[in-house]
Amino acid sequence: MDVDRPDTAPPVSPRRRSFLARSAVASLAAASGAAAAADNLPPNLPPQVPQWMREPGAGFLQPPYGLPSPFEKDVVRKLPAQAAAFPTATRTPLQSLVGTNTPNGLFFERHHAGVPAIDPAQHRLMLHGLVKRPLLLTMKELLRFPAVSRSHFIECSGNSMAEFKAPGKGSVQDIHGLLSGAEWTGVRLSDVLNEAGLLPSASWLLAEGADAAAMSRSIPLAKALDDALLVYGQNGEMLRPEQGYPLRLLVPGYEGNMNIKWLRRLKVGDAPFQTREETSKYTDLMPDGTARQFTFQMGVKSVITAPSAQQALDGHGFREISGLAWSGQGRITRVEVSLDGGRSWEHATLDGPVQPKALTRFRLPWVWHGEEAVLQSRAVDEAGNVQPTRAALVHSDGQNSIYHYNAIQSWKVATNGEVSNVHV
Amino acid sequence: MDVDRPDTAPPVSPRRRSFLARSAVASLAAASGAAAAADNLPPNLPPQVPQWMREPGAGFLQPPYGLPSPFEKDVVRKLPAQAAAFPTATRTPLQSLVGTNTPNGLFFERHHAGVPAIDPAQHRLMLHGLVKRPLLLTMKELLRFPAVSRSHFIECSGNSMAEFKAPGKGSVQDIHGLLSGAEWTGVRLSDVLNEAGLLPSASWLLAEGADAAAMSRSIPLAKALDDALLVYGQNGEMLRPEQGYPLRLLVPGYEGNMNIKWLRRLKVGDAPFQTREETSKYTDLMPDGTARQFTFQMGVKSVITAPSAQQALDGHGFREISGLAWSGQGRITRVEVSLDGGRSWEHATLDGPVQPKALTRFRLPWVWHGEEAVLQSRAVDEAGNVQPTRAALVHSDGQNSIYHYNAIQSWKVATNGEVSNVHV
Repeated sequence: MDVDRPDTAPPVSPRRRSFLARSAVASLAAASGAAAAADNLPPNLPPQVPQWMREPGAGFLQPPYGLPSPFEKDVVRKLPAQAAAFPTATRTPLQSLVGTNTPNGLFFERHHAGVPAIDPAQHRLMLHGLVKRPLLLTMKELLRFPAVSRSHFIECSGNSMAEFKAPGKGSVQDIHGLLSGAEWTGVRLSDVLNEAGLLPSASWLLAEGADAAAMSRSIPLAKALDDALLVYGQNGEMLRPEQGYPLRLLVPGYEGNMNIKWLRRLKVGDAPFQTREETSKYTDLMPDGTARQFTFQMGVKSVITAPSAQQALDGHGFREISGLAWSGQGRITRVEVSLDGGRSWEHATLDGPVQPKALTRFRLPWVWHGEEAVLQSRAVDEAGNVQPTRAALVHSDGQNSIYHYNAIQSWKVATNGEVSNVHV
Repeated sequence: MDVDRPDTAPPVSPRRRSFLARSAVASLAAASGAAAAADNLPPNLPPQVPQWMREPGAGFLQPPYGLPSPFEKDVVRKLPAQAAAFPTATRTPLQSLVGTNTPNGLFFERHHAGVPAIDPAQHRLMLHGLVKRPLLLTMKELLRFPAVSRSHFIECSGNSMAEFKAPGKGSVQDIHGLLSGAEWTGVRLSDVLNEAGLLPSASWLLAEGADAAAMSRSIPLAKALDDALLVYGQNGEMLRPEQGYPLRLLVPGYEGNMNIKWLRRLKVGDAPFQTREETSKYTDLMPDGTARQFTFQMGVKSVITAPSAQQALDGHGFREISGLAWSGQGRITRVEVSLDGGRSWEHATLDGPVQPKALTRFRLPWVWHGEEAVLQSRAVDEAGNVQPTRAALVHSDGQNSIYHYNAIQSWKVATNGEVSNVHV
């Protein structure tokens, strides 16, 4: 008489008969009392309703701008333990995130002279140099331009840098947490440049922030006219202070520091401006002692976030392997997952819609029987780029560089379920 | 010698030559000094760099879970002014949002006995009734099921209710703010039902919350097996307390109260359960005195959020009309905007990717010359439903009902730029 309605249920992995451990399934025979038979209750019910059903809960607007549950208090951005004396960045708790974009309160921070407290009514964007009509724009004027919303990741070019040398000891937050994603809203930079009118020799932009570092980088004009945005919105609301409030340059897919925060000035020129941040910093030191400059685009990359280092599998049976993939060159088209350190691979599913130069969540079902395993993920983008092994990356780029590490991450699962970072 | 690079710039609306008011455009002749000639500076530069570039800014992790700028302190959820003695809900500040989904801190609230403070380690989901294997699940067990992330709106069926009678006096937040959207992450309800095994007579579910109201509603089994989710994630992180932490039923496109928060129990039956919230409440009183029951699906609807009531246009010239559209029956396929109270219509652009039963941002360029205008938006969904005029809705549903108001909203723009709510 029973039916499992296989016609309406989603396909079940051939690997398992149940998503549940045995303990959670109550047999019908166990619930054989009269009351239980009427309601068909599971056994081992708690003796009473929980305390939070016995009294009214908290009222409205506590606080007016809402915050996470106190039970989630450890899900926060963190400095790496060894950097307390000279903090340079805080990292996103990737191991605790379950969706696509990063909540604004957990978006990673990297700043060079602290977070300025900018009054948007006083803020100005100057556009000058090789233009027909230099501009000095208020935020109100920028907000009247046509707007667009797009999801894009931002990754610090120094993300995962310690992995060039040796496996880091921390969590995925510590190792790869200079990565976040958001839906950004703002103005096409091409619209603003068009308003100023470019002169024929224009080929580069200088972008400068209104922090005390006057953080500045050179941007190729072709990128500015392609998909760059002047953004004031982040995940639906105004930018957060540490993300550039009230205005940020967004150059999708380019290394994090080029997305100039607190944007105050765009100068149009005919050559790169050779700022401090592209001569002394943010160049890639090669094995032969030369330095690569202007390596703007972030490579194709992925990382498994569940399970990941410092976690422990809570028992045998079914679970889902899940992580994030991204590429500075376009959409993620495929993510493969290996359970055996790269000897064999399976296709993961991708949460859609997959968007270009944006975080993409991948998932693979797994039944763990207590065996040792080495989990890896390998991403491929629409330009055909394949995420390299660590050996291939070190072979091509050496170990002097601290930027643009995008190699495959290996997590070792021990027989006791503990997960750790290994280089294989 | 000058070029405007029309080949790379996006198409410019035929309505205007510039997005800027005259004052913002500096003529080249005005910047004629020697220093100015080198850098081609705009005139009227501020005499010095702003204070926030002259001293280091705030350090990292202030606070560890980030918050908006103090300059955005008024962008919060609000109770309606007249409801202070008996608050029932807080509303999302739609007039201040610029993207697609709603930040978690601004998601509207509706609860019937306060917000319980639930320890996820103590929380259980019971699944019983017409099933082969009754289940009592922990959150850890649910987190091991296969997961999926999808964007969906939630709208209270009582949203905009005052508009059945007369034009509300408040902002778009006050009038239509029982509406928010998020990317939800969780488990397919069909997977959990499949785990329990449905008996042949199963056709309805009772869903019950773990708040002091034990808020409960009947859900058709067909919907449960179609696209319903048991969600624990909201916009990438765990659910907020006021949104059901640690577990919520999501029935995409159905009226808000059916998305049972703090979900503790699912009972499978063979008929609706006739709970308080579907007999005394949440029925639609018709003109003939009868009541419609089980009007689950939310209609196709849209509202212009910028400009909207209580705002004032800051001068003539170019601006963008923007708003949100959504439907309980699928994707939004078209939004039309009228500037003349519905006599003529233009197609708005939709921010993509457009997702089913999700908020969709629409935009239309506009040049305002100071004339009186009545702005309207009209949404169409993939099932062919067209958002009705207020007259048509009142003709069909009368004015006794307080639920499922989805008529076209009219904003009157006065010659002084002030925007107000009108019924036309």
